[in-house]
Amino acid sequence: MITLYAWNTPNGRKPLILLEELGAPYTLRPVPLDGAQKAPDFLKLNPNGKIPALVDTDSGVPIVVFESGAILQHLAERFGAFLPTSGQARASTLAWLHFQMSAVGPMAGQLGQFLRRHSDDAVGIAHFREEVDRVYGVLNTRLGEAPYLGGDEVSIADFATWPWVDGRRFIQLDLERFPNVSAWFNRLGERPALRRAMDITFTGV
Amino acid sequence: MITLYAWNTPNGRKPLILLEELGAPYTLRPVPLDGAQKAPDFLKLNPNGKIPALVDTDSGVPIVVFESGAILQHLAERFGAFLPTSGQARASTLAWLHFQMSAVGPMAGQLGQFLRRHSDDAVGIAHFREEVDRVYGVLNTRLGEAPYLGGDEVSIADFATWPWVDGRRFIQLDLERFPNVSAWFNRLGERPALRRAMDITFTGV
Repeated sequence: MITLYAWNTPNGRKPLILLEELGAPYTLRPVPLDGAQKAPDFLKLNPNGKIPALVDTDSGVPIVVFESGAILQHLAERFGAFLPTSGQARASTLAWLHFQMSAVGPMAGQLGQFLRRHSDDAVGIAHFREEVDRVYGVLNTRLGEAPYLGGDEVSIADFATWPWVDGRRFIQLDLERFPNVSAWFNRLGERPALRRAMDITFTGV
Repeated sequence: MITLYAWNTPNGRKPLILLEELGAPYTLRPVPLDGAQKAPDFLKLNPNGKIPALVDTDSGVPIVVFESGAILQHLAERFGAFLPTSGQARASTLAWLHFQMSAVGPMAGQLGQFLRRHSDDAVGIAHFREEVDRVYGVLNTRLGEAPYLGGDEVSIADFATWPWVDGRRFIQLDLERFPNVSAWFNRLGERPALRRAMDITFTGV
């Protein structure tokens, strides 16, 4: 049994997209970001006190995974899909997955935090606005050269990045300035499984 | 042949540590952070314009990898070491690797940037000081429960995190406040291969 602990945020949507794309059975356990993510029982699943976390008991012993990038990789390897097993395709998929984890997510996340929590800090906002623009420029160049972030095939690198682009209004980002990202975003947005994942509604427990 | 493009920064030291720990033959190509990392030829290796990047030709076709987390994983899988192949050990190693990539690195990196580039921005500095303290608290709790980040065995999660802790003076962090991190840092610091990697000096090309 696969149990996903998540909430309605980009990092929470990532494993939902992959699970729907895999057609894997799973149970969704909502973790409202009202402090539930810092509760002692949840910290046993994710010591970082954030969603998502995943528990996979299908091998007979429970495997607990946190960090959305690690969850995506665990599921992709378990089901043998959306992560090439060798060569340049695997290296590129992991590279762009880590680029999402280290740059797309943190820089957009910090811009969002400064816009809300530190709205008077013009220096901080400008700093992250500039960095987000740079990061989106890197994505835009890549997606002018290849149909997907990992190369010729859709992968967990795309599923990791897509919900962050979907949340662009949160950081007041005009996607039209990055036409290759926009085209990729719209193309992936037509995938029925991805749509199912994005349409799941969350309610507190 | 393995060629590593790097410079004397935490992210540059990570793959050096792993290569020395593996005892793998490699060539180090210094990339001074004076603009060389944004040169067109280097952007072909890392479209993000940062070090490190790696080119591995041992399979007969060149494999190009960027993002330090992806480089560590590529090398660990190629040489079959420092990344368990299955189960909770693999999941935990990947989780803590991604925690380094998404939190330890970006938050310390941003605190360092604000301290230098935005030294008048007390709000921004306090924001990242608080987040770095929180992240180090997460590491400290983990290293009170397990000898290494991934669990019982040293792994790429440790090699990813160690050079960031080594660079703590850059962010004026007092490691004595995190005794489990400090003990782990000192214990790993005695490994001869890690010491060799940290002792490599960089000069411009």
